[in-house]
Amino acid sequence: MEASVPSSAGRQSGSVSSTRAPAAGAVPEPTSSANVTRPANNRFAWAATTMPSPWLPPTGLVSVSPGPRSARPTPDRGHSSKYGAEIEVGVQCSACESPAVTHLDYAGRDLCADHFQRLVESRFKKQLREQLEALGAGEGARIAVGLSGGKDSSTLTALLVDALGPDPRFEIVPISVDEGIPGYRGPALSSAEELADQLDLDLRVVSHEDDHGWTTDEVAQTETEGKPCGTCGVFRRSSLNQAARDEDCDVLAVGHNLDDCAETTLMNLLRSDLEQVLRTGPHEQAPEGLIPRVKPLRSCTEREVALYGVIEELPYHGAECPHAAEATRRTYRSLLLDLVDHEPSARHRLLSLEDKLKDRLDAGEADETELEPCPECGEPSAGGECRACQLAAELEAAHADA
Amino acid sequence: MEASVPSSAGRQSGSVSSTRAPAAGAVPEPTSSANVTRPANNRFAWAATTMPSPWLPPTGLVSVSPGPRSARPTPDRGHSSKYGAEIEVGVQCSACESPAVTHLDYAGRDLCADHFQRLVESRFKKQLREQLEALGAGEGARIAVGLSGGKDSSTLTALLVDALGPDPRFEIVPISVDEGIPGYRGPALSSAEELADQLDLDLRVVSHEDDHGWTTDEVAQTETEGKPCGTCGVFRRSSLNQAARDEDCDVLAVGHNLDDCAETTLMNLLRSDLEQVLRTGPHEQAPEGLIPRVKPLRSCTEREVALYGVIEELPYHGAECPHAAEATRRTYRSLLLDLVDHEPSARHRLLSLEDKLKDRLDAGEADETELEPCPECGEPSAGGECRACQLAAELEAAHADA
Repeated sequence: MEASVPSSAGRQSGSVSSTRAPAAGAVPEPTSSANVTRPANNRFAWAATTMPSPWLPPTGLVSVSPGPRSARPTPDRGHSSKYGAEIEVGVQCSACESPAVTHLDYAGRDLCADHFQRLVESRFKKQLREQLEALGAGEGARIAVGLSGGKDSSTLTALLVDALGPDPRFEIVPISVDEGIPGYRGPALSSAEELADQLDLDLRVVSHEDDHGWTTDEVAQTETEGKPCGTCGVFRRSSLNQAARDEDCDVLAVGHNLDDCAETTLMNLLRSDLEQVLRTGPHEQAPEGLIPRVKPLRSCTEREVALYGVIEELPYHGAECPHAAEATRRTYRSLLLDLVDHEPSARHRLLSLEDKLKDRLDAGEADETELEPCPECGEPSAGGECRACQLAAELEAAHADA
Repeated sequence: MEASVPSSAGRQSGSVSSTRAPAAGAVPEPTSSANVTRPANNRFAWAATTMPSPWLPPTGLVSVSPGPRSARPTPDRGHSSKYGAEIEVGVQCSACESPAVTHLDYAGRDLCADHFQRLVESRFKKQLREQLEALGAGEGARIAVGLSGGKDSSTLTALLVDALGPDPRFEIVPISVDEGIPGYRGPALSSAEELADQLDLDLRVVSHEDDHGWTTDEVAQTETEGKPCGTCGVFRRSSLNQAARDEDCDVLAVGHNLDDCAETTLMNLLRSDLEQVLRTGPHEQAPEGLIPRVKPLRSCTEREVALYGVIEELPYHGAECPHAAEATRRTYRSLLLDLVDHEPSARHRLLSLEDKLKDRLDAGEADETELEPCPECGEPSAGGECRACQLAAELEAAHADA
């Protein structure tokens, strides 16, 4: 079996649709505007004028006619964000004559909405094709997608449908996990349902309460030390895997972007934990019972994933979890941002390093573990009760003592 | 041939000598003071009272009798340096009842001068033994030492003589390279000569001017872009290798400390350059013509190496090169310091990561290159003129054009 990702595709159905220019293999080289397929009425005007978003500049881009680049002074890039300079009015796309909507620090290029989208789509498809091929997931493959309703998973799901939806050899199964944080997960689940509806997909919702007997809000009240994030992560991974297996899926796609992946690699390397570098997805194989994970957004930065979703008007919920992230993760994220400040391509280099390490260290070695079904829940476990059931039992005990 | 590093040894000769307690295998566990060999008159009193040094606290440690630890409140650690908290008057050694002279952040321990020295010596000997064994350098080995007169190489040379000097199977050959930066290298060379004299070693001095036709000061005047550090580094490595080969040495010991090594690993990883990680010493083999390098101080922090030299009253020159370091190196050093601030054992973990990578990636692969003698100078080269001769020719051309 060999995966074949269609090279051009439209949305399966729903209200989100677009005219796509052919995907480019990399950051497109400058080209005459005659070669670029663009709608007559710039469909991205709204992005600059109607939606106040941290991902886009606040001023109208479309009304400005900058004239030839050589005749203009170097534009002031305006204030700089952690992820690179914001674009200023009047900057032209490096690949055509349209106004740019983003500046790629690490590539030294400005891109208009069309060329930016083509870039994201081409990177997404390259990763997806390579990862599905490595897993031998081709004809008849059912692909589960973790769809939380946040920016990453919404962009992931839309791009998956775009790339694979029209291909009858693939089926896409979105899964949402309700952790039980009502004020936060409620609106996100609504976004997930709205997107699934637009894309004509059936959303399956599973919950920590059903699978593990505890909502994350309850865990937060019971945990005596620190945040509930550790337990929540274990429960969520277990629920996602269980749901994907129940749905007979061959692959589980998750929305990790380049920043997430680079942060994880940095953390594992600075902990001197090579085994964990190898164990982290995308997987080329997985022990019996574990659905192998693919991460097709791993070469797109967090900012690129979010900007893509904004341009495509994808419904998503942007709030941060009220329980906030683990302190450890924050430390490594802050180190990663320092690195990017010094060297804009630091995240890309960490990704390339991860690939080289997996390539040369024989990723197979790390996956020799034989897993057995947990006697409590049936999820794969290294022996005896799985971690999720252990944590649930500890919570029961702590609750009984209180 | 198998290396055997004597487990206890005194200085070969000269004015620097000390009574050594037996080396411990790791940070020593607390022990009764009766088991610790210490001179009747505390020979470290001078370190606290006579020498203003950034590496030691400014106040007299010896006059303080702190009483049992349990009876005292937790002492105020005073101001914190980049490498961990300075020690405050009244803190007791974690291994005996003597006053502590240093606090090891990464181990959460305070050590007196005696236990601190034993720790450095034990780490040094472990690294030296393992590295010489890996090279098969045993009986009859001649060991060249790069002795610049700075803190790292002075401590390295003294420790080498201490560990190997009394063993007739080893010969130690100190080599200084005069780069041609008079106001800076002059005093450092005097320190190197003074130390060699104390240790009864013959110092060999070679120079960039003799070997390459240019002093670093001249290079600095000719270089139109940036610092002369790149050229200086190439010339210095070439001169050191040439001198070590001329002296029929089997091994070249260099004074890189843990901070240097961790910084290099961090830089190579963040550049995604695994080959360079493997190519960096300590070497387990080297192509014909290149003297393999050992780095016995690689598990001791910069601060530990300097403090050891201060306690041992080793002559060294502490000034920084007027041409200053490369900006790139500074960036990675500053990132490393950020890492250490977050995680005190970050440097140790990077060292362990380097070892694991070399172990698992088969260091042999990186050294398959066949080198040929440079037609100009005879130093090993990947083909044609070596890099040092190329740089010298470029300098000649630039000088002729000016």
